[in-house]
Amino acid sequence: MIKVGIIGATGYTGSELLRLLVKHPQVEVHVVTSRTEQGKFVTSLFPNLRGYIDHEFSAPDTVGLEECDIVFFATPHGTAMNQVSSLLEKRIKIIDLSADFRLKDAALWTKWYGQSHTAVELLEQAVYGLPELNRKAIVTASLVANPGCYPTAVILSLIPLLEAGIIDTQSIIADAKSGISGAGRKASINHLYTETSESFKAYSVSGHRHLPEICQALDTLIGEPAGLTFVPHLVPMIRGIHATVYVQLQSDTEIQKLYEDRYHNEPFIDVMPAGSHPETRAVRGSNVCRLAVHMPQKGNTAVILSVIDNLVKGAAGQAIQNMNLMCGLDESTGLDFPALSP
Amino acid sequence: MIKVGIIGATGYTGSELLRLLVKHPQVEVHVVTSRTEQGKFVTSLFPNLRGYIDHEFSAPDTVGLEECDIVFFATPHGTAMNQVSSLLEKRIKIIDLSADFRLKDAALWTKWYGQSHTAVELLEQAVYGLPELNRKAIVTASLVANPGCYPTAVILSLIPLLEAGIIDTQSIIADAKSGISGAGRKASINHLYTETSESFKAYSVSGHRHLPEICQALDTLIGEPAGLTFVPHLVPMIRGIHATVYVQLQSDTEIQKLYEDRYHNEPFIDVMPAGSHPETRAVRGSNVCRLAVHMPQKGNTAVILSVIDNLVKGAAGQAIQNMNLMCGLDESTGLDFPALSP
Amino acid sequence: MIKVGIIGATGYTGSELLRLLVKHPQVEVHVVTSRTEQGKFVTSLFPNLRGYIDHEFSAPDTVGLEECDIVFFATPHGTAMNQVSSLLEKRIKIIDLSADFRLKDAALWTKWYGQSHTAVELLEQAVYGLPELNRKAIVTASLVANPGCYPTAVILSLIPLLEAGIIDTQSIIADAKSGISGAGRKASINHLYTETSESFKAYSVSGHRHLPEICQALDTLIGEPAGLTFVPHLVPMIRGIHATVYVQLQSDTEIQKLYEDRYHNEPFIDVMPAGSHPETRAVRGSNVCRLAVHMPQKGNTAVILSVIDNLVKGAAGQAIQNMNLMCGLDESTGLDFPALSP
Amino acid sequence: MIKVGIIGATGYTGSELLRLLVKHPQVEVHVVTSRTEQGKFVTSLFPNLRGYIDHEFSAPDTVGLEECDIVFFATPHGTAMNQVSSLLEKRIKIIDLSADFRLKDAALWTKWYGQSHTAVELLEQAVYGLPELNRKAIVTASLVANPGCYPTAVILSLIPLLEAGIIDTQSIIADAKSGISGAGRKASINHLYTETSESFKAYSVSGHRHLPEICQALDTLIGEPAGLTFVPHLVPMIRGIHATVYVQLQSDTEIQKLYEDRYHNEPFIDVMPAGSHPETRAVRGSNVCRLAVHMPQKGNTAVILSVIDNLVKGAAGQAIQNMNLMCGLDESTGLDFPALSP
Repeated sequence: MIKVGIIGATGYTGSELLRLLVKHPQVEVHVVTSRTEQGKFVTSLFPNLRGYIDHEFSAPDTVGLEECDIVFFATPHGTAMNQVSSLLEKRIKIIDLSADFRLKDAALWTKWYGQSHTAVELLEQAVYGLPELNRKAIVTASLVANPGCYPTAVILSLIPLLEAGIIDTQSIIADAKSGISGAGRKASINHLYTETSESFKAYSVSGHRHLPEICQALDTLIGEPAGLTFVPHLVPMIRGIHATVYVQLQSDTEIQKLYEDRYHNEPFIDVMPAGSHPETRAVRGSNVCRLAVHMPQKGNTAVILSVIDNLVKGAAGQAIQNMNLMCGLDESTGLDFPALSP
Repeated sequence: MIKVGIIGATGYTGSELLRLLVKHPQVEVHVVTSRTEQGKFVTSLFPNLRGYIDHEFSAPDTVGLEECDIVFFATPHGTAMNQVSSLLEKRIKIIDLSADFRLKDAALWTKWYGQSHTAVELLEQAVYGLPELNRKAIVTASLVANPGCYPTAVILSLIPLLEAGIIDTQSIIADAKSGISGAGRKASINHLYTETSESFKAYSVSGHRHLPEICQALDTLIGEPAGLTFVPHLVPMIRGIHATVYVQLQSDTEIQKLYEDRYHNEPFIDVMPAGSHPETRAVRGSNVCRLAVHMPQKGNTAVILSVIDNLVKGAAGQAIQNMNLMCGLDESTGLDFPALSP
Repeated sequence: MIKVGIIGATGYTGSELLRLLVKHPQVEVHVVTSRTEQGKFVTSLFPNLRGYIDHEFSAPDTVGLEECDIVFFATPHGTAMNQVSSLLEKRIKIIDLSADFRLKDAALWTKWYGQSHTAVELLEQAVYGLPELNRKAIVTASLVANPGCYPTAVILSLIPLLEAGIIDTQSIIADAKSGISGAGRKASINHLYTETSESFKAYSVSGHRHLPEICQALDTLIGEPAGLTFVPHLVPMIRGIHATVYVQLQSDTEIQKLYEDRYHNEPFIDVMPAGSHPETRAVRGSNVCRLAVHMPQKGNTAVILSVIDNLVKGAAGQAIQNMNLMCGLDESTGLDFPALSP
Repeated sequence: MIKVGIIGATGYTGSELLRLLVKHPQVEVHVVTSRTEQGKFVTSLFPNLRGYIDHEFSAPDTVGLEECDIVFFATPHGTAMNQVSSLLEKRIKIIDLSADFRLKDAALWTKWYGQSHTAVELLEQAVYGLPELNRKAIVTASLVANPGCYPTAVILSLIPLLEAGIIDTQSIIADAKSGISGAGRKASINHLYTETSESFKAYSVSGHRHLPEICQALDTLIGEPAGLTFVPHLVPMIRGIHATVYVQLQSDTEIQKLYEDRYHNEPFIDVMPAGSHPETRAVRGSNVCRLAVHMPQKGNTAVILSVIDNLVKGAAGQAIQNMNLMCGLDESTGLDFPALSP
């Protein structure tokens, strides 16, 4: 059994990790920490877990972490970068669900996150944990930077096109929509039911922190800076991301087949039949990304539709997929079940 | 492996049966029928099941049913009563999720369902499939009438009190609230998003079909007709039932302990700590009923709060719980996972 | 024109007052205060009011208040009681939408609100602002305590029965359900979209602050302490309260007629036809309370259904109704428009 | 008083017309027809209108229409084109909220609506009822084709740019999102609460009927065929459209000022401050279109955000705005009130 610790488990990615890990056949949840809720039972915050976990939240510096084989950080950005180093020295593997190790360029990180990076020396060894892109490197990684939710949905929608080199890489538009759990579990007026229900809006049009993360992946794929316009929106629903991606094709490749071929062996990518319109509810609670490709009006604009559950494939599920790879397990272990719908 | 057939699998109870059965370790889904959708892939209606089931819907009279060990009816009322008899003759076990075999009194059934009952001779042998009440009988049953969603939530909230004989049985009030999936998956103006979202109302105050079903169970428990006022309401959410039950205590029994003792060994009943307020989301997608008991204002009115997922413990999950019992499996097989929250 | 001030206008009752007052033909909004948002434009918080109000929020102690004819307090409890006295001395009329002057018994107030009352001498002169009960007193009042949202819905559902003296006053049950705006506009984890959507729960079963307020009104009507069990619930919708009230009839009075007669001349009470099920959306944004009475199963339990918009008839609209009465205007001025549905 | 008839008033545009017209100071609602609901009280379908309208639905061919000054068609497409001619002969003015007279090219109409057009001779005289584009023509029109909801949101977001001639007209992308009332009030599985809540999807990516309508307006503005990719999406909310429009600027014009100047005198267009993110709830129930312009990442891609209430500015409100113009009233009559939020 793999001994697992979760640091900062009072948010939605933390509780989703717990939901999935308590049923993972090869995992023993060893320690669950929270600075604010220490001493309380995990199930007092998350009653859906009653009967599945007896732990109390312990303080972040409690003994117990060093006995773990793998530690997940489900903390806000700025926390993991201060603690990872000492855990790595004890040969504990790390999966960081925060943004601390996603960007390779520390200056860029500082620009977007507004603080200095305190573990610059680890940025190079950190592996960006998108298995469909970096599977080999993840298998041998000690430190995995789990991707953001928007980046997961957007990058997966573009990999086949970028690898094939058949689009104008300077005019990519990603119009993305997220459920409200993407904003996290913290006191906020802006994300009250009364402020978000029965409404729809764009936000951070001038620049969202996931923009440089997406660009870094696209740049690596094409070998030069991509031109991306990324606009996130807030949808009155709990879970789900829908990315609608617009690209200009520069060849008449049959892109339905391109996607099917590229993702044929991927356990968590579902290329839907031509003409499909994937719904976010069809991935609710599951680790699957469903994709559909369209060529409307016979022009050369391709429209790629991509849906994930932001808390699963966009966070906790992908983290467990990475854990499985890092620990030599079948990649789907503990993640192989259908979405909850309706 | 148990070979299973599902008749009428295009509704929400049918699709939920499929979601649970495709991961049940002892079950092979053999045939899935639909009069209206025959020839279509199941996954064309329920894309959340893509990757888990390859079946097409077959016609209800297709060969295949007789090869099943157990057949679920997920049809509207009035269908199962015409088909059960011939299946039983072939020693196929039946779990009927419709209302056809829930009432023992055919005249009462006719009064509430507006048609004659065509299988009166089977009413006596049919076992009301509430395991917490009838476990022994279910184990040996050939025909199980799976309870309605409201009755499950209400009866479970009253069993300890009625068995203890400590309440006024003539003044029970059950104020029940249901998510909209209780209305089924059928074309209807009244259950459009636009007609139900951001609103709340009571319905069928003059009499709902689940009233006689609840009364039958209560009457059996107390040996005389109970006096019950039952008012259902429609909540703008997909899944979940919350019953708020008001009773007059006639003794000063410590009812928290009464509930804990009665349900101590029940795998799917969670008596929450005193003072709790169970939420429907804490049972979403799971087979658990969570209960909390209150004695507000130091009077002798007790308030029992009871939540279930109407599609799981209130339908498909309970049906599988019954199947497990009827087939000699551990009662929790295929049903042991936490609820999806948030 | 009536010069109006609003103290604490950054919450939902404050913004709803503004929505209604900017179109009130006899009102000029003179000053709008907020401790936290002073200096900001009102429309920067409430963009729906763009084009209708140019004010900035001013500090609560700003000059300007003393020029008003009437001042609304839309503050949390504990604020108005410290400021009302000096305003009354300047012959400014006060409508307090908070709880400070609702209870006549200062000790009771302290018990439920957890602090001492600092204006006990004003409690007697304060008029409880439910026009259907206290219209005459409101007309001449200088200080009106605007009722709570639950009390408005529940008391209106009971007045005809209590005045007629035909029910058992010791076994009244009010099962009430509220939209989430009832919790106010303040940073809170518990009222995030992600914590409340797609779920339903009871809360404060052991005792809610609106309980003594309802009881005070019932006690006054019947001349002795009523026996009331009051259980509030949270509905995943923004606006609306639905009260389902259960009473035991002690005579065979035709109660449909009783309600129609009692409320015949009330401009904001709609007694719906027998058999109706009022929906909260049918009063959304309007000052109307819609009522329906039922006698299910031919017993002597009557079920009264009562719906209001908690922000209008349950707060801001009723406050303006009171203002109209206090200022000698037609009671419906500025409040006469249909609900927004769907 | 203007005598008004509404044909087909059982849908959401019809009921919204009624909500607005019953309070319009210059209008008398004379006749309200419905083929399916004739003989029923309007308020039995729309209880929010109780107290405001006593009419029963009458049959579509009832006497009464010819006494009207103006008739609104709130029917599905294919109805108005058969009835308009005889009404026009009686000098009754017509506002058609359906699609029958929106496209000037009958062959194009047939292609998209799948039937022959039966009033081709009226297409030329029909005026496309977008006041911000065609105000003068509307004033003198006898037959106004009220725009679709998506076209209203998208065209209004592009007029200033197209009139200024500063964008690449061949690469316009309109990613549009609509609440579910856009699908109308009709029995449908696809638009049940249970099928749409807590989910998000694109639809009709291969081609939506509003595409040729938008293109016709754009083509007219620029004098040649525009290149538009239009992708509609379904949002789990009742009302509201949000269009996110992406264009490539070909000059360094200050577009914030461009929008402010173009719309300075428009009573129902609100150009929000630079950096704003308009929310659909900020126009709920109102006739306003709120716009914000962005130039993210210092590139030459402009992002225009445009929100309307699809039932008001996208249907009934705009129809009344047109009626006001056609009848010589102030354009804002009956439409001047703030949006309902939250």
